[in-house]
Amino acid sequence: MNNVKKVKASIIIIGNEILSGRTQDTNTSTISLWLSSLGISVEEVRTIPDIENIIINTVNELREKFNYVFTTGGIGPTHDDITAESVSKAFNIKYGSHQEAFKILENYYDPGKFTEGRQKMACMPVDADLILNPSSGAPGFSVENVFCLPGVPSILKSMLGGISHKLTGGKPILSHTINLNTVESEIAKSLSDVQKNNSEVDIGSYPFFRAGRLGVSIVLRSNDQNKLDLCNSQILNFVKDKKIEIVQKN
Amino acid sequence: MNNVKKVKASIIIIGNEILSGRTQDTNTSTISLWLSSLGISVEEVRTIPDIENIIINTVNELREKFNYVFTTGGIGPTHDDITAESVSKAFNIKYGSHQEAFKILENYYDPGKFTEGRQKMACMPVDADLILNPSSGAPGFSVENVFCLPGVPSILKSMLGGISHKLTGGKPILSHTINLNTVESEIAKSLSDVQKNNSEVDIGSYPFFRAGRLGVSIVLRSNDQNKLDLCNSQILNFVKDKKIEIVQKN
Repeated sequence: MNNVKKVKASIIIIGNEILSGRTQDTNTSTISLWLSSLGISVEEVRTIPDIENIIINTVNELREKFNYVFTTGGIGPTHDDITAESVSKAFNIKYGSHQEAFKILENYYDPGKFTEGRQKMACMPVDADLILNPSSGAPGFSVENVFCLPGVPSILKSMLGGISHKLTGGKPILSHTINLNTVESEIAKSLSDVQKNNSEVDIGSYPFFRAGRLGVSIVLRSNDQNKLDLCNSQILNFVKDKKIEIVQKN
Repeated sequence: MNNVKKVKASIIIIGNEILSGRTQDTNTSTISLWLSSLGISVEEVRTIPDIENIIINTVNELREKFNYVFTTGGIGPTHDDITAESVSKAFNIKYGSHQEAFKILENYYDPGKFTEGRQKMACMPVDADLILNPSSGAPGFSVENVFCLPGVPSILKSMLGGISHKLTGGKPILSHTINLNTVESEIAKSLSDVQKNNSEVDIGSYPFFRAGRLGVSIVLRSNDQNKLDLCNSQILNFVKDKKIEIVQKN
C-alpha cells in the first residue's frame, strides 16, 4: 500500500474502568471497522486514565500526528467525566455551556427535569461542532480533527453515522482472510516469500486456538483488488502443495 | 490512594489485526486484572502496528515511565513477528538464537520436526530471561522490566503464573461495585460530594444499557478496606434518600 497516501487515525480510550480490566473495551473494534470502510486506517490506540494533564497531552500529541483523532468516554455528567474540559484546555478554547447543546438537552427532557446536574452535559468547548446523539440526547462534539464520543458502546455506535460526511478517507482498504488447519511454523517460510513478492499487500498471520483445534488465519489487506487476488492465488498454491486443509473459522 | 506509592505498569498490544478492528483484544483485561491482584496498577495501554521503529520507540518510552511493561503479540515464527528483534534493538542487545529456548523447543518437537521455520521462535535477545509456556512450548521472555508475551489469549493466560514471582507489587487494590437502577445525572451531584469527602477512594461512574434498561455502575477502588467501607456507606445513604433501586447487573 505504498503508492497511495494513507489517511491515518488514532483512538484515545479514556477511562479507569478499561485500564483496571473490569470493563472490556469494544469501541476500538467498532470505530476501526467503520473507519476502514471509509478508507481510513487506525494506526494507534491509547487507553489512558481520567486524569486531566494526561488527556491534554495525549490529545495534543496525537492530533498533530494523525489526520483524525477519536476519543471515547468521559463526556457524561458525573465528577469523573473530564474529557470535555480537558479537550477545551488542549485547544485553549473556553469551556462552558454550548448554546446549541443546551437547547437540544432542554428539549430532550420533560419540563423541570433539565436539572443542574444534567446541564453539565451541555458544557464543552463553547464553539465546538456537535455530534448528534439519536440514542440518549446528550451530544458529542468535535474540534478541528478531534472527535469526542461517549463510552457506552451502543450510544457510540448510533452516533458514528452522523460523522461520516465530515471525514475525508482514502481508497477503501480491502481485506481477505484464509483460515488454515495448520500451525504458523508450517507455513512461515512460504508466507514470507509471498510477502516479498507482494509488497503492496499487507499479509498478517494470526494463530487461533478454538474448540481444541489449532489454526492460522492469514489476512491480506490492500487497496487494490487485483493485487489482493494475485497474492491470494499465490498463497492458495502453496497451501495446495503442502496439502493443508482450508477451514471455516466460525 | 495518595498515601502509598503506586506500582505502575503499561501494556503494549502489538498487532495490525487489533488496530484494523477485525480482532477484539482481550489481553488487556486479562493482564490488568492479574496485575491488580498483585497490587500493580495499569496506567496506560498502547496498541501499535507491527512496525519496527514504532515498537522500539514505544518500548523505550514506556519502560522509562513505568515500573513494568508488558507486550503482547509478534513473537511467533512468521514474517510479521518482529517483536523479539525490535525489543533486542530497543535494549541494544544482540538478537539471535537463545540457547535455553532452543533446547526447550528441540525437546518439545518430535525428532526432525524442529525445522528452520520453528527455530525462529528461539530467536530473541540472547541473554533474555525466559517466560515458560505450558501450552505450546515456545517461551516468551523478559529483559529488565519488559515482559514479552504471545498474542493468543489462552496461551498468554497460561504463562502469567510463571511471572508473578518476578514482580514486586504494592498494596492490593480493593474494589467494590454498586449497580443502580438510575441515570448518571440523577446522582452526579451527590456522588461528587462523596468523592470530595473521600479523596483516597477512586470513585468511577459507568452508565450501562442492557436489555432495554438503563443503569449506572459505581465502582469504588482503594487499597484501604476501611476507607472503602466508609465511602460505600455514604453512597448507600444518598441512594436510600433518593429511593433508587440497587440491582444485580448480571
